[in-house]
Amino acid sequence: MRFGSAFRPTQESLPPPGANLVLQVPPGLPVNIHPLNPLEFLLRGATVYPDQLAIAHPDVKHPVFYSYSVWAQRVQNFAYALIENGVRPGDRVAVIAPNSYGVIGARAIIVSVNIRLTKKEVDYILEHSGAKLVLVDHEFVHLTKDVRARVIVCEDTGRPEDPYEQFLSSGRRFSRERGWLGLEMDADETKPNCLNYTSGTTGRPKGVLTTLRGTYLAAVANAYEARMGPDSTYLWVLPMFHAGGWTYPWASTFAFATQLIIRTVNFPTIWKHFLHSGVTHYCGAPTVQIGIVNDNNARKLSKPIKAIIAGAAPTAHTLGALEKLGILPFHVYGLTETYGPFVRNYPQSAWSSLSIEERAKFFARQGHAFATSAPVRVVVPGGSGPLVDVPKDGKTVGEIAMRGNILMEGYYNDPEATARAFEGGYFHTGDLAVWYPDGSISIQDRSKDLIISGGENASTLAIELELSSHPDVMEVSVVGRPHPKWGERPMAWVILHQTAADRWNGRRVEFENELIKYARQRLPGFATPEWVVVVEELPKTSTGKIVKTVLRQRAREIKAKL
Amino acid sequence: MRFGSAFRPTQESLPPPGANLVLQVPPGLPVNIHPLNPLEFLLRGATVYPDQLAIAHPDVKHPVFYSYSVWAQRVQNFAYALIENGVRPGDRVAVIAPNSYGVIGARAIIVSVNIRLTKKEVDYILEHSGAKLVLVDHEFVHLTKDVRARVIVCEDTGRPEDPYEQFLSSGRRFSRERGWLGLEMDADETKPNCLNYTSGTTGRPKGVLTTLRGTYLAAVANAYEARMGPDSTYLWVLPMFHAGGWTYPWASTFAFATQLIIRTVNFPTIWKHFLHSGVTHYCGAPTVQIGIVNDNNARKLSKPIKAIIAGAAPTAHTLGALEKLGILPFHVYGLTETYGPFVRNYPQSAWSSLSIEERAKFFARQGHAFATSAPVRVVVPGGSGPLVDVPKDGKTVGEIAMRGNILMEGYYNDPEATARAFEGGYFHTGDLAVWYPDGSISIQDRSKDLIISGGENASTLAIELELSSHPDVMEVSVVGRPHPKWGERPMAWVILHQTAADRWNGRRVEFENELIKYARQRLPGFATPEWVVVVEELPKTSTGKIVKTVLRQRAREIKAKL
Repeated sequence: MRFGSAFRPTQESLPPPGANLVLQVPPGLPVNIHPLNPLEFLLRGATVYPDQLAIAHPDVKHPVFYSYSVWAQRVQNFAYALIENGVRPGDRVAVIAPNSYGVIGARAIIVSVNIRLTKKEVDYILEHSGAKLVLVDHEFVHLTKDVRARVIVCEDTGRPEDPYEQFLSSGRRFSRERGWLGLEMDADETKPNCLNYTSGTTGRPKGVLTTLRGTYLAAVANAYEARMGPDSTYLWVLPMFHAGGWTYPWASTFAFATQLIIRTVNFPTIWKHFLHSGVTHYCGAPTVQIGIVNDNNARKLSKPIKAIIAGAAPTAHTLGALEKLGILPFHVYGLTETYGPFVRNYPQSAWSSLSIEERAKFFARQGHAFATSAPVRVVVPGGSGPLVDVPKDGKTVGEIAMRGNILMEGYYNDPEATARAFEGGYFHTGDLAVWYPDGSISIQDRSKDLIISGGENASTLAIELELSSHPDVMEVSVVGRPHPKWGERPMAWVILHQTAADRWNGRRVEFENELIKYARQRLPGFATPEWVVVVEELPKTSTGKIVKTVLRQRAREIKAKL
Repeated sequence: MRFGSAFRPTQESLPPPGANLVLQVPPGLPVNIHPLNPLEFLLRGATVYPDQLAIAHPDVKHPVFYSYSVWAQRVQNFAYALIENGVRPGDRVAVIAPNSYGVIGARAIIVSVNIRLTKKEVDYILEHSGAKLVLVDHEFVHLTKDVRARVIVCEDTGRPEDPYEQFLSSGRRFSRERGWLGLEMDADETKPNCLNYTSGTTGRPKGVLTTLRGTYLAAVANAYEARMGPDSTYLWVLPMFHAGGWTYPWASTFAFATQLIIRTVNFPTIWKHFLHSGVTHYCGAPTVQIGIVNDNNARKLSKPIKAIIAGAAPTAHTLGALEKLGILPFHVYGLTETYGPFVRNYPQSAWSSLSIEERAKFFARQGHAFATSAPVRVVVPGGSGPLVDVPKDGKTVGEIAMRGNILMEGYYNDPEATARAFEGGYFHTGDLAVWYPDGSISIQDRSKDLIISGGENASTLAIELELSSHPDVMEVSVVGRPHPKWGERPMAWVILHQTAADRWNGRRVEFENELIKYARQRLPGFATPEWVVVVEELPKTSTGKIVKTVLRQRAREIKAKL
């Protein structure tokens, strides 16, 4: 209990004495078959450590702190409230706010909606998912205007007059204290439990349907791999609506850890909690890590914090800066379709003698199966029929493909896209990589980001890795730009470190030429950027991913100026 | 790599360059369904940390040290050798020696035979299991005389002329380097993989059939709960043939840990490895722990070692002695039928302020579901129809019942015993316990060990717990003895600490009376031992369990003397 405040649950959030924290086993199952269900993580937590702090939400007017016991009761109330409101097994319930297990208690499917989408995009998701009920945070009520589904607003106060608390209270009354035994569990562990829409930098977002079994196994693996336990405090830097929070809502619960909620992700708030709230774990893309190491509040931590990094490989500079602060980086790779992490980088003892630059190269690699996951393959892209592996030579570029328990069931209501994605019995990620003899891989690009320059394939990630080794470069993104002779040529968009920006002030063109020269010494001609543009910021998704489609568009528009 | 010696694999144990460490996925499965198979732990280990020391066997004339890479190749060779010798999916292969994954590679079922059984008992097990092939260690060849199955002897040398090595070489040749892809995995994760015979202190041993799914989930849970990882070294104090080694052969592999093999379990050898081989984990019953803390070589460890304890609750004295040496006790409960640990004791922060005696009482409790396990129930014994829970009052004695993924499929070729054990959809353990309001349980006795004294139920475990708090008592076992007036009365068999034995030398009757007086102050009349006998040793099974049937027999026989 790292927070002094007492819990302030409403009356209806207190469990009855001797509450039975067991799910009803469906009849007819063999005695040794118990359908995997991540909801049981919560019930175990409430049984083993009822007073352990499960949810801390300190940075609001009415802070709330829920123990595992109280949290489990609230989840139960929520499930009953859903049933009372006509939600049936398999129905979709949308959440435009932090997440909840309650939906699974009612055997419904959680649709976590990205709060930074436009009204039109949210409309599409609510329509496509056919959500029967929408739970919305007060800040995002405008996103639910004219929505046909029933809408429940959460004022995020935890006080009895909050509409969300009234919804829960209604569920508690409706339950007539039948407790968990009134909520039968799914007999089939392959039933879906979440519908996570891809952030979709191009086209319509697709609904990724995940299962109870997959969520269970992925969560156990994440808790194991990140070495989480009852002493852990997980800080929600990564939004929960992004790829189901990489299963950390479940992994944290499996580990009996504390989840620390923040409404707005900004670096001073992150550092406040790093320094004062006993944070031990968080997830974030490299751009988030860059913001963390460059924040004014950054200082050496007295206890190490584990940073789970995905989305791209962190640069040597970022890695070194993290390590200097006492943040232990942990590099994983995955997609919304794989519940977040599917493979991870396993550090080898031989690396300890390497320089930080050398280590960063190995650290950037991926490709070994996560616990409970399965090995990936790198295959010749675009073929039909059985997949053909590319050679494990560390050079040939192929597409990453995988199958296994930590893979979505398919795209919701989109059999065509599902069939395309699963062609040949494997999921085709659209991500390109080279394969090394030891079975690890190095991600080169999204296939659509690849630059075809004079007939050669240039990996924008490989170019970015080299450019970011320049001491003045803080962040860089490379896209292809049409070129009359070569078809396409790389264009680099660069953010400078503050000191470098001051130094080059008024001489930007000079710096741009220097960086091109720097690149030419390190990269083949077709991969050397033809153009460098210094900018103040880069277009990013809510999860910190750089939106290359926007950069490509800009590259075309500023043509005249170059 | 904590051992200086180089690996000494035979030529046939070296993997080919670029070996494909992937199992063939059976055709026709959905892309997101991958049958759980613990064999993949080994392939992951050989992929991620090929040079990590997997098996160390240092204390023999020809020590062997196998890396994960070499071990995986040997397992593969073994699987092919089995197939070459006519072993087909579902066939049983007996092992009278340390264990092997190779059997699973051939989709056969491992029968681990207790090496301390008599020839007659081994004959029964080989006959009942219908083992098609027997792998036997050179020391136990006499146990396989006149056996009908094919017998392969292992001289435990790792040298090319060893018959076991020749068997492996033959498998390698037979494989024609098809590798893992020539060994299709089971499409059905509920297929059996092990047949573990109960040690059976009474009657015929029963064959406990466990599944791939159960082994997988139990192993992941054990690795997670014991916090094992690549830095762990697991010392084989518990024999692998006891309840499948509580799934630690698999859990250690899942964690990429090193398994340290010893042929004979004696305390000086254990301490040698504790002090010099970087041991981090071991399993053992309380009697083994007593031997460890009392050994002359015992001294404070520089790094803590985790002791997984099951079979009975350790006494306060043992707990205190362990902690003083830097051994961290971890109390679990389970049976052969539950793959070993099913529930565990979860220490609570409030205990830290208690005295060691008070802590020992809480530490002796059990009953919270292990990760991936399920909560147990304590039910009214002997009823038919739906099970009825006893009240959670910490007083009413009932029978422990459970169901879930970490439960056997049933008794092999014994539908009647299986139906009896699974009556009402739960497994009936035959172990008695009281249930506390927090859901934890305290094990009282095997139902057959219960003493019915003047119509009252006296728990021998509860009596033992009180008697063992006497400072002179090192070990104690209590059984019922026929009594003309009360039906039965408790009789205590006691081993004294060495110093106490010297002190009471020649005055044993005096001590026996003192202990009865001591008990009378702490126990109800019907539970106070009527007789105390000081002995030099107690009859034990190979796994250190006290054989109460023998004590009951002796109690009847020495009647005249009392």
